Amino acid sequence: MILPTAEIVCLGNELLIGITINTNASFIGEKLTELGYEVRRVTCIRDEVDLSVEFFKELFKRKPKLVIVSGGLGPTYDDIQLKVISKSTELELQENSEALEQIKKYYSKRDLKLTKERRKMAFIPEGAKVLDNQVGGAPGCHVVYKEMDIYCLPGVPTEMKDIFNRHIFPYLRKQNEYQLFQRKFQITGCAESELAPFINEVKINFPELYIKSHPEYKGESGIVIHISGYGESEEKKVVSVMEILQNDFRRNFPHSEIKAIKE
Amino acid sequence: MILPTAEIVCLGNELLIGITINTNASFIGEKLTELGYEVRRVTCIRDEVDLSVEFFKELFKRKPKLVIVSGGLGPTYDDIQLKVISKSTELELQENSEALEQIKKYYSKRDLKLTKERRKMAFIPEGAKVLDNQVGGAPGCHVVYKEMDIYCLPGVPTEMKDIFNRHIFPYLRKQNEYQLFQRKFQITGCAESELAPFINEVKINFPELYIKSHPEYKGESGIVIHISGYGESEEKKVVSVMEILQNDFRRNFPHSEIKAIKE
Repeated sequence: MILPTAEIVCLGNELLIGITINTNASFIGEKLTELGYEVRRVTCIRDEVDLSVEFFKELFKRKPKLVIVSGGLGPTYDDIQLKVISKSTELELQENSEALEQIKKYYSKRDLKLTKERRKMAFIPEGAKVLDNQVGGAPGCHVVYKEMDIYCLPGVPTEMKDIFNRHIFPYLRKQNEYQLFQRKFQITGCAESELAPFINEVKINFPELYIKSHPEYKGESGIVIHISGYGESEEKKVVSVMEILQNDFRRNFPHSEIKAIKE
Repeated sequence: MILPTAEIVCLGNELLIGITINTNASFIGEKLTELGYEVRRVTCIRDEVDLSVEFFKELFKRKPKLVIVSGGLGPTYDDIQLKVISKSTELELQENSEALEQIKKYYSKRDLKLTKERRKMAFIPEGAKVLDNQVGGAPGCHVVYKEMDIYCLPGVPTEMKDIFNRHIFPYLRKQNEYQLFQRKFQITGCAESELAPFINEVKINFPELYIKSHPEYKGESGIVIHISGYGESEEKKVVSVMEILQNDFRRNFPHSEIKAIKE
């Protein structure tokens, strides 16, 4: 099965110099996977226009179906995301009246002035659809360029999630026919390398499934076995692979402990 | 000042599907920045040989001075890092006796057999230097290719950090003449967009410094102002920019609270 591909791009020096831990990428990656996309790359790039334009031109040549960009939407001088998208797509930035209304409303509610810096956030690539931000000042937008869907989102996690959950998730859910079936379980009391031969064997018999061990799960230690497949026909296979592996492990590592992970 | 450039590459589907939050990239990015490198990109890629080889060939064309790769060193079928480095550099994988000794020692201490999967970890690119791993089974290595330093590290954070701190940090400290001077402080009680005009003004007067606001610091909320510069001559400027901004903020936002962040 060939899944539509996606790339995640996170803009901001803070991600490259270690000030910020990139939780946005894992949030977006998990959602896109669930929605039936194959996330091919996550890239963090600097707040520099020329380097970023060069990066996006390369990315567009790879033609992912979907591009989610977060970070660099806002009022400060290094909030360059939309300038970069504009330069790399050659879609001009135009003041969008809907975006301007949202920005005005956001600041007037807070008794703050509409400065030049804030007004800048209403300039979005021509033809783009505004996605309102109910948490912060910078609206997101949806750009369609050469059949790629590009979503431009702020980098502040609460704002990014707000726009993602209200605008992007429901739209993509309708777009994509695939559904992910997955099972995860945790095993403690043996080494990841001891499990490898069993995983390799089952992998040969089910090449269409994704079967992998990870030494941790979201910061929690203990080896996690993750089995997934796309399409309704795969559900039964996913479950039987889980059962085969659990039986193998119980038989060969009687002192290990197996625990299910709920989604 | 032109800093040597670096790229960080994290290999592993778990990073793309949201199972793992990429704390390795922020650890490495922070250290490299401190060591005087400009981290240009962080890229997470899938455990797929062809896609990864294509990625590394592009990367090598950008000629960063330094490449740190983490993830995909180990005994399982998807631990493809060294195969990918070998294919993209055309340096053959050869069984390295030093690496083999370390692997044998690691497993015999734990009363585990030297399986075929474990022995695989002793194959490293020809000419590479082995970097012993004191926490896990997979040794790292240091490859020099077309004047680029490539460090191959495991993805398990404790193992990656062990090798980074003992082998890479001291080596790079000696290599690079630059030193980073930085100050960070936190301000609460005003909006990031209110601070923007003051930061923009000081930025014009000190274009050689990096001056930026971030809405959070390693998960902690409150706007962080980060000022940094390289080379001894910049230390005084960094401190005076901090004082200028703190005075501006105190004068204009008397109800805000300013707090220093210690390194």
